[in-house]
Amino acid sequence: MATDRRYIADWLMSLQDRITEGLEVADGTGRFREDNWERPGGGGGRSRVLTNGSVIEKGGVNFSAVFGSTPDFLKQQLGPEAGSEFFATGVSIVIHPNSPQVPIIHMNVRYFETGSKVRWVGGGIDLTPHYVKREDARFFHQALKATCDRFDEAYYTAFKQWADDYFFIKHRKETRGVGGIFFDHLKADDRHGFDDRIRFMQAVGETFLPTYTELIRRNAGLAFTEREKQWQLIRRGRYAEFNLVYDRGTKFGLETDGRIESILMSLPPLASWEYDFQPAAGTPEAETQALLIKGIDWIKG
Amino acid sequence: MATDRRYIADWLMSLQDRITEGLEVADGTGRFREDNWERPGGGGGRSRVLTNGSVIEKGGVNFSAVFGSTPDFLKQQLGPEAGSEFFATGVSIVIHPNSPQVPIIHMNVRYFETGSKVRWVGGGIDLTPHYVKREDARFFHQALKATCDRFDEAYYTAFKQWADDYFFIKHRKETRGVGGIFFDHLKADDRHGFDDRIRFMQAVGETFLPTYTELIRRNAGLAFTEREKQWQLIRRGRYAEFNLVYDRGTKFGLETDGRIESILMSLPPLASWEYDFQPAAGTPEAETQALLIKGIDWIKG
Repeated sequence: MATDRRYIADWLMSLQDRITEGLEVADGTGRFREDNWERPGGGGGRSRVLTNGSVIEKGGVNFSAVFGSTPDFLKQQLGPEAGSEFFATGVSIVIHPNSPQVPIIHMNVRYFETGSKVRWVGGGIDLTPHYVKREDARFFHQALKATCDRFDEAYYTAFKQWADDYFFIKHRKETRGVGGIFFDHLKADDRHGFDDRIRFMQAVGETFLPTYTELIRRNAGLAFTEREKQWQLIRRGRYAEFNLVYDRGTKFGLETDGRIESILMSLPPLASWEYDFQPAAGTPEAETQALLIKGIDWIKG
Repeated sequence: MATDRRYIADWLMSLQDRITEGLEVADGTGRFREDNWERPGGGGGRSRVLTNGSVIEKGGVNFSAVFGSTPDFLKQQLGPEAGSEFFATGVSIVIHPNSPQVPIIHMNVRYFETGSKVRWVGGGIDLTPHYVKREDARFFHQALKATCDRFDEAYYTAFKQWADDYFFIKHRKETRGVGGIFFDHLKADDRHGFDDRIRFMQAVGETFLPTYTELIRRNAGLAFTEREKQWQLIRRGRYAEFNLVYDRGTKFGLETDGRIESILMSLPPLASWEYDFQPAAGTPEAETQALLIKGIDWIKG
């Protein structure tokens, strides 16, 4: 069968190759460093991190494939479906650019299989601009919608809403950025065979590179001020809050004894927490803050 | 009765007054800003934060007294003891100094009461030096031991170990710093009446100011380099990890709908996550890293 775990893991490694090569070209000077790691309980990963590039200050593109005894937290989460063994493989990306004009981006695609052969795909892409530009948000969402529409016309609406709900910093009552798509536990069903689910996950993975490199092309050359840099540090603080308090991938990594530096590559190179910072009314910072809410139709605008 | 909730909350406010006054004197130029807040479900707080002082870059000394319906997470945690109503009051402190030569400090003392009139005290102080100095760690632990010994000769050993276990960054397998003391759920028992428990909590609260101002006096005038400043940012990143992933006070605040800026005043003004940073062997940074383990007898040294 074409979509067994071996095929999927190999394909994800090739995706990692294409993305790191493409990002190096877009960056111009930065090079990814590779670290291979093994998980004590089974499997391991291939982490690639680029730091201090021309465009990217810190960016990780990680592949992992882990397996073994199903940990307790997964048994609780999955119920009877869990089985005693699990296999999980995926590619995870977080890019923190130097310039506050260039958005932070996150992408993850993953495949999960339990001992009882229940299997599904999950994933998501979301964009966190330090300054929300409607035309960039529209471009980003249009690209995601085009990918979704190739598989199911209901996908984009459903997965866009899922992203609004998931990439939400509950204690701040604000979204992490302009959202994107999020989906999980997509199994074979009447409408979609499992090969179709896998192809959708692949298509989402392939959407990342052309979309983000276009956003780099548009924004990396723009000038910025010290004030904009300071606001970037505050937004990065919120990003760290989300990842440490809510992010499922981070929790999964910590709970399954993954390599800590690979899991936490998502944390920003530099971040700031200024007490009770409130952007002044009428500023671009206040405008961005006002757009960090659920339910905006970025395509209609 | 002398130790009812009104008395305790008033005493904690007076402790907050003494500490903020004392820290302003020690700092020299910084002044605390006060924010009063109300909790929708009952109670509120008085937050005081000092930023950009001569010694203190960002420091919060917060008082709160909150009450109302016991939230679900507390019912789960406390079991039948929880009751339907709760009352909680405390003072929480985190100080991030400008200089990497001066340690970060945290202190919390708290009183908790359930609707069923079960009541207890809790608290803790712990020190997070960017560079561990054995003589400072000894001075700090001696001060805590002296306070503990006035109440029970078993306290220091028990509460020092509790702090080693509590102030531990599990995913890093390292302690947050040189520890201190931690205690919780101290109720009246055969050896200690409730007034005695309250007096112990008060004594811990009173230990903070003379101890930390002495550490400021010893270290604030010392020179430091860019490299030491960079290491400080990395240690602050670990501090943020602890507070967002493990800290009970942070969780309690977020879960009980406390004022977010008061809860997260503990987060550092600036922090850094450098991918896979490993201090070079033989450096002072490596020496400090090697001391971030449980079970060190700092008094014996």
